Amino acid sequence: MTKEKIYLFDTTLRDGQQTPGIDFSVEDKIAIAAMLDEFGLDYIEGGYPGANPTDTAFFGEKRTSQATFVAFGMTKRAGVSVSNDPGLAGLLQAKSDAICFVAKSWDYHVAVALGCTNEENLECIAESVKAAVGAGKEAIVDCEHFFDGFKANPAYAIACAKTAFDSGARWVVLCDTNGGTQPPEIRAIVEAVIASGVPGRCLGIHAHNDTGQAVANSLAAVEAGVRQIQGTLNGIGERCGNANLVTLIPTLALKSAYNTRFETAIDEERLLNLTRLSHAFDELLNRSPDHQMPYVGASAFATKAGIHASALLKDPKTYEHVPPESVGNFRKVMVSDQGGKANFINALKRRGITVAKDDPKLDLLISIVKERESIGYAYEGADASFELLAHRTLGTIPEFFTIEGFRVMIERRFDSLGRVKIVSEAVVKITIDGQTLMSVADAEGPVNALDLALRKDFGKYQHEIDDLVLADFKVRILNGGTEAITRVLIESTDSDGVRWWTVGVSENIIDASFQALMDSVIYKLMKNRQLAGKIAAE
Amino acid sequence: MTKEKIYLFDTTLRDGQQTPGIDFSVEDKIAIAAMLDEFGLDYIEGGYPGANPTDTAFFGEKRTSQATFVAFGMTKRAGVSVSNDPGLAGLLQAKSDAICFVAKSWDYHVAVALGCTNEENLECIAESVKAAVGAGKEAIVDCEHFFDGFKANPAYAIACAKTAFDSGARWVVLCDTNGGTQPPEIRAIVEAVIASGVPGRCLGIHAHNDTGQAVANSLAAVEAGVRQIQGTLNGIGERCGNANLVTLIPTLALKSAYNTRFETAIDEERLLNLTRLSHAFDELLNRSPDHQMPYVGASAFATKAGIHASALLKDPKTYEHVPPESVGNFRKVMVSDQGGKANFINALKRRGITVAKDDPKLDLLISIVKERESIGYAYEGADASFELLAHRTLGTIPEFFTIEGFRVMIERRFDSLGRVKIVSEAVVKITIDGQTLMSVADAEGPVNALDLALRKDFGKYQHEIDDLVLADFKVRILNGGTEAITRVLIESTDSDGVRWWTVGVSENIIDASFQALMDSVIYKLMKNRQLAGKIAAE
Repeated sequence: MTKEKIYLFDTTLRDGQQTPGIDFSVEDKIAIAAMLDEFGLDYIEGGYPGANPTDTAFFGEKRTSQATFVAFGMTKRAGVSVSNDPGLAGLLQAKSDAICFVAKSWDYHVAVALGCTNEENLECIAESVKAAVGAGKEAIVDCEHFFDGFKANPAYAIACAKTAFDSGARWVVLCDTNGGTQPPEIRAIVEAVIASGVPGRCLGIHAHNDTGQAVANSLAAVEAGVRQIQGTLNGIGERCGNANLVTLIPTLALKSAYNTRFETAIDEERLLNLTRLSHAFDELLNRSPDHQMPYVGASAFATKAGIHASALLKDPKTYEHVPPESVGNFRKVMVSDQGGKANFINALKRRGITVAKDDPKLDLLISIVKERESIGYAYEGADASFELLAHRTLGTIPEFFTIEGFRVMIERRFDSLGRVKIVSEAVVKITIDGQTLMSVADAEGPVNALDLALRKDFGKYQHEIDDLVLADFKVRILNGGTEAITRVLIESTDSDGVRWWTVGVSENIIDASFQALMDSVIYKLMKNRQLAGKIAAE
Repeated sequence: MTKEKIYLFDTTLRDGQQTPGIDFSVEDKIAIAAMLDEFGLDYIEGGYPGANPTDTAFFGEKRTSQATFVAFGMTKRAGVSVSNDPGLAGLLQAKSDAICFVAKSWDYHVAVALGCTNEENLECIAESVKAAVGAGKEAIVDCEHFFDGFKANPAYAIACAKTAFDSGARWVVLCDTNGGTQPPEIRAIVEAVIASGVPGRCLGIHAHNDTGQAVANSLAAVEAGVRQIQGTLNGIGERCGNANLVTLIPTLALKSAYNTRFETAIDEERLLNLTRLSHAFDELLNRSPDHQMPYVGASAFATKAGIHASALLKDPKTYEHVPPESVGNFRKVMVSDQGGKANFINALKRRGITVAKDDPKLDLLISIVKERESIGYAYEGADASFELLAHRTLGTIPEFFTIEGFRVMIERRFDSLGRVKIVSEAVVKITIDGQTLMSVADAEGPVNALDLALRKDFGKYQHEIDDLVLADFKVRILNGGTEAITRVLIESTDSDGVRWWTVGVSENIIDASFQALMDSVIYKLMKNRQLAGKIAAE
């Protein structure tokens, strides 16, 4: 039997932007679109060109190479022709492959929010879809408030969906905008829409999590016949969030209730990247991943001490609903850390470091990592620092230089014209081959000043670090209060295009930054030697 | 039509205890049981007497006055008589009203984990139930792995359920122990169990959230006929958690898909306490409530988008799936650059600031907020800074003091014993009534030193800020690189128990922190005057 395809439509960059506390910059959007595109989703909705400068700039270029790139916007206004609607013109000009129009489908909102007649709204839908298709774009219509609208006036809600379909929309998406619809209602209403003549292969579902059932509602709609699901990474979104694609994708792929009849663009091989995608997205948002998130959470396959733990190790299959490796996650048994050693050997092997299972240095490395993670280091997000620590512990890295110390001064004062002035000045002292080198630099921020001073004079190594660039800098406070422990993650890159992450942890934010900066420089020196294949000769 | 009752069974203190990172003390358990009992749930499962000293001590007394108090434990062992099984004896002696036995119902686990025959397991179930009933207790049987067991051997899974029922169990609970079962499977299997002769009025559902559908699975089981739901507060539990009662209860009470046919012990009046219960529980666990949790989250009824926000205020009913007050929560229209004039007037009104719609100062305030948000300020998370900015712009706040400047020095060096030493020293200079006050302080971190120096000498205001405490500190880098803009959010509190958030933004992380610290002090001074009702007189 050939399987039917369920299309995956990501709206992280559009509806996800409504999440309290989340504001994407153009650079954020470019990075996230690339992550989504590489992962393999069918549609990536990037925002609302014309609504704000960020989204307009983002749609100045096409941002996907595989996925259909979608611009979101309103249908044309009533009483204005297609060619005289500046909003619609902006949408048609955006560098997108498709346009997703939001259309009112609840007659109450047509009257109150749009202030036009029901007939005019239908005409706006039809004309907008035709304009998009005429411009060579795929047309998608999000029927806003569809389920609540259907309950109030089923004939009108269906007329909106049918008008979109009849005008040439590839997809008509039924939106549970307020998020309160229950799965049995979703099933019944989707069935009514299909019975009215809009085929399921052109229907999508857009669910919100206001009763904790966005995933279940999306799946109920698929059962009833829809073939497109809209959702977001990690379920971000307004109020309680949108349907979580990170939960839906493995459920569709791995559960026999669905994978015997359906398939998505995310096959078994792509699914292996799911956990990494989810965590990378949280990292970009600078927030801790939810440990309890289905499939990808750190606790999703964790078992605590008790009746299950020992049986689990005997036969994981009967205690785990899916194999953790299938989504790129791993099993965690919290009592006896028996998986620990194999995990480490594997992590080292992936970095080209071979170590015997019975090497006492391996036990030392494990205990150092555990101790450091307990005080706040996070090696999961700082590959380069982990690799350095391994090399140091296993004794395979030279001591390039020693740090004597640093001093940073930050001052806020008024200049001679009475304007507030902020200056940062840093002094760094290092020793290379017995020679002490002292450098000073100033900058707007203290970390920048420290970075400049650190790399100003590296003696014989100077030419090796000239192309090192600090690409990103993240700070997380690990516990409350101003006496908190601070973790700093730094991303570096160089002219080879390699990127690496390092970590520093301290009660002092400047010192934590310094640790991460130092690791970055040492990693760069080590990498140069590895490239030259002469690490042993050093 | 009389409604059927759905019984609510809370297992926060038993299955919730399997949550990674959660360990209840006896005192915790007593406090939580009292909260649950007062809220009005039908059953409170307290733990496993005999399994550990905490649970044994907890069951030394009956801990509920209204709810049925339940002890959890295993059925008697095979090959041992009821009177010779010490585990069962302990359960019978516990001061509980009911016993919930966990029984294997997957033949594979009967063989592997229990090491007995299928027949022996049925006998253990029957004998245990009879012993509980004989001791005057209500008997409940949790059929572990019921759904996976049913898929492997339906006849045996059903035999376990029927044996429990036939032996006198009040409830036979079907457990999705591994959490991977899908709603359509739940419906079909529950229907098969009812068809086999166990009536729905004696069936319960115990769902886990491994595919994000614990709530949907519980409701699917109710649709299919079960009349008891097991779950936990805020959905805590092993791996991805148990079914969240805080989500299920309002859904059953407020959604017409259920409340027209069913009722629970939590009526409309008790439902008003839901948000408080959920937050009090997180408080007890010493963790931040999930802002996006359905019904009770701080964002559950928050709107950011401009297009929705103004319509929302006109007619909340059509934008909210339930009234926020019905669950003890409230509507939140966030101040953000996406909001319009109506948003602002409302946000000000809620803070007791009245301003006319056509006041030019209102336009000024809006443009200042928009400009500041465009450079990185985030007033939606910093209420106190927003209020201060409004008061300043509308001219209703005195200038308490002026800042002359600050200087912070951070040094890393070796002490006389060769140990790395990090010190931070801050100097702050302010002017009050023409008098310049200069203070110095040191601490581990620069922000802490700055905070100590800033509040060391506040002249005539000193006694007013003595009880100010910095409760939390958050840093967000708004764009990449070390020249990035930094946003600092600071949470403060005082002896009145009031909490407020302030924000600072700068290319310099120390300066951003200083701005937020300053706003916090000024807010405190303003708040003191508002309390004293003399802001006009100042």
